[in-house]
Amino acid sequence: MSKYSVSPAGERFPLPEPEDDAREFQRVQALAADARAEGKEIVVVMGVGFVGAVMAAIVADSVGPDGKPGKFVIGCQRPSPRSYWKIPLLARGESPVKAEDPDVDPMIHRTVIDKKTLVATHNSDCLKLADCVVVDVQCDYSKRDLGNMKTGSAEMSALEATMRTIGEKIQPSCLVLVETTVAPGTTEFVAWPIMKRAFAARGLRTEPLLAHSFERVMPGRDYVRSIRDFWRVCSGCTPDARDRTVKFLGEILNTRDFPLTVMDRPIESETTKIVENSYRATILAFLNEWSLFAERNGVDLVKVIQAIKVRPTHSNIIFPGPGIGGYCLPKDGGLGYWAYKHILGFEDGDQLFRITPAAIDINDTRGLHVAELVRDALRNMGRYIAGANVLLCGASYREDVGDTRYSGSELVVRKLTEMGAELRVHDPYVDHWYELESQSDYPAPGH
Amino acid sequence: MSKYSVSPAGERFPLPEPEDDAREFQRVQALAADARAEGKEIVVVMGVGFVGAVMAAIVADSVGPDGKPGKFVIGCQRPSPRSYWKIPLLARGESPVKAEDPDVDPMIHRTVIDKKTLVATHNSDCLKLADCVVVDVQCDYSKRDLGNMKTGSAEMSALEATMRTIGEKIQPSCLVLVETTVAPGTTEFVAWPIMKRAFAARGLRTEPLLAHSFERVMPGRDYVRSIRDFWRVCSGCTPDARDRTVKFLGEILNTRDFPLTVMDRPIESETTKIVENSYRATILAFLNEWSLFAERNGVDLVKVIQAIKVRPTHSNIIFPGPGIGGYCLPKDGGLGYWAYKHILGFEDGDQLFRITPAAIDINDTRGLHVAELVRDALRNMGRYIAGANVLLCGASYREDVGDTRYSGSELVVRKLTEMGAELRVHDPYVDHWYELESQSDYPAPGH
Repeated sequence: MSKYSVSPAGERFPLPEPEDDAREFQRVQALAADARAEGKEIVVVMGVGFVGAVMAAIVADSVGPDGKPGKFVIGCQRPSPRSYWKIPLLARGESPVKAEDPDVDPMIHRTVIDKKTLVATHNSDCLKLADCVVVDVQCDYSKRDLGNMKTGSAEMSALEATMRTIGEKIQPSCLVLVETTVAPGTTEFVAWPIMKRAFAARGLRTEPLLAHSFERVMPGRDYVRSIRDFWRVCSGCTPDARDRTVKFLGEILNTRDFPLTVMDRPIESETTKIVENSYRATILAFLNEWSLFAERNGVDLVKVIQAIKVRPTHSNIIFPGPGIGGYCLPKDGGLGYWAYKHILGFEDGDQLFRITPAAIDINDTRGLHVAELVRDALRNMGRYIAGANVLLCGASYREDVGDTRYSGSELVVRKLTEMGAELRVHDPYVDHWYELESQSDYPAPGH
Repeated sequence: MSKYSVSPAGERFPLPEPEDDAREFQRVQALAADARAEGKEIVVVMGVGFVGAVMAAIVADSVGPDGKPGKFVIGCQRPSPRSYWKIPLLARGESPVKAEDPDVDPMIHRTVIDKKTLVATHNSDCLKLADCVVVDVQCDYSKRDLGNMKTGSAEMSALEATMRTIGEKIQPSCLVLVETTVAPGTTEFVAWPIMKRAFAARGLRTEPLLAHSFERVMPGRDYVRSIRDFWRVCSGCTPDARDRTVKFLGEILNTRDFPLTVMDRPIESETTKIVENSYRATILAFLNEWSLFAERNGVDLVKVIQAIKVRPTHSNIIFPGPGIGGYCLPKDGGLGYWAYKHILGFEDGDQLFRITPAAIDINDTRGLHVAELVRDALRNMGRYIAGANVLLCGASYREDVGDTRYSGSELVVRKLTEMGAELRVHDPYVDHWYELESQSDYPAPGH
């Protein structure tokens, strides 16, 4: 096992040794004690990845009615070789995520270096210090077969382990807020029981204060605003948890201009997130068939879309482009489909869900047609795809972002490579295309 | 065969005799000659049904730059027992369609009685007088099996017959504008050849001036505005036809505030209409599966939708209600699916179209679940659906309209009746539910 964790820029950070843990906790504990003495609330953000790092900075940057910081934030990440580097980076005031939003880097620098309201640690004992824990640990949907999302499954283990750790370490009165997009039912019927068992094992008789409020992050130049200045939905497992969440979010987000929607139960807010992203996936998938129809019949689909978009009721129609990806749209419907069987206990998901799975499958395979068009364009020039040098411009899933997760371009590259082409890729936002650097983790297209 | 045509209010109009035709033409010819002497353009509107009657009045109500009426409009309808009554009604200044828009009745009265810019005739010889013909003849999509739109077919015969008549009678320089929603390719590859053959049979060597510009009528209180003050799309089979259409539409519609989209070929504007209504059908169908998911898991879908709608990119998400209908959404995707094979010659429509047909099938059968819910609600009260008295409120397909065509309520009534319930229906906008008065024309649900 590696003793280092390497950042995207190539910097090597030695992994912390277990014997450092006590000292590390004392360091954080002392900082938290100072902050609490100043009247600050202690917030632990679990997971400082794509969302958590920026969420941590937003909380740390928030101010109370007196204009002074009201929160002291501890960003926490497990010391794995894959992720540990984020901690020392964040600790010196650098963003662990490459953000296209010019607000991110200054905000992280400001909160870590100037305001000293944000620190980072790998030691989850920091949970003992928390008044509030925000969970930004990933919950992926792992697909097995290309173009058949139904054979996939939700990857709950990291989230479940995190909830267990939280249940083992937090104070009974600590609010725990799950921000992760999860399979509907996860918060109340999976995470809450885990925490309850951990509380019971500690002899605690109180119910854990657990809530759910998904983010609506949009990677790109408005990254911070898409978290802070955007409508939020929340819910709690209990009225107490719900009320604490409403108060907490009101202190850190712009809920004046973007009012909170408060729902009765976590399954409602969880379902909201799944439905809204499945809706968007469906809107995108819908045009796939009409773009092929248009291509084959001399219809300019871009003009068709422009003519339709003028209608206010149709203004969100969107050309699907050569491929559809991003972290959320390809997976969220899968979490809903999976939950219906595995959390909620229904066997008729295949009959019930007709649009959502079709939309994901269509989007996931749309890139294959790009490879066919390249093949045919070369044939029209008297050439073959095998051995051809192909330059692909754009690796990430949308313009002006560096996020390559589930990018539509990935399938284009894989399919063209399968056809024998020699691929080169250019993307000014992407230094590393991780998905292509660890090929064995991913199914080859066409299989 | 009936010698009368009976209006919805029960008024009986004797059908015209063939020997009246010559006198009727002379009457209209004299009126048109007077109008032309005043510098007016003669416009014939073929079909004075749901769209045509209001379109005719809008054209007749339009004024030129001098503030005076510039068009003399002849509304024409074949003298069939089913439709003839519209002609004498319109001729005395009464709307042949029951409109919820308070502008319709005064506009028809004003143009027929006061301005005398609108007349009605059953004699298609009026086409000989036209500078411009607007075609508002229906093109239905007739389904054979409930929940399987793919076995249906486009009903082109009325439109084809009309195009033949037009080709036989118009002056060569007359502009013909198809407003009907048609299967993509119809205008250029079906209607135009029909007209060309008719021209050739008359020894004419010029190409017919044929164009397409679909309406975006929305039944309800903004009926007139949805035709006149709304964005239009148009295209011509030839540049001449296109330019004449742009000029004509600019004279009768509010193209200043709602600019025209001019497309290169009719198949592009035809496809635009099909895609935009298929889009809407898909948006509605998408929530069917999530509404069942919500129903089974204690999730309030209305609240979910409200939470999603706040996002500008998701603001058009719409709760599908107990059933989805209306004249356009259930059929337009069918016209596209059908055209792909029957006009454009492709055999892989079943592979290509995955979302559009599924959306229509889902929407067409959604009402069945209402009957199941009624059945189950009665069972929970210890009663059975057979023999139960059921009152259905709302026969038309949406609020505040009387249009029952393809109404979602129809399936609810048919299914509950099949289950043995005794149905009563109340709808303040509906005097006659024609679809249920000629039952033999419609398949029973569940078969």
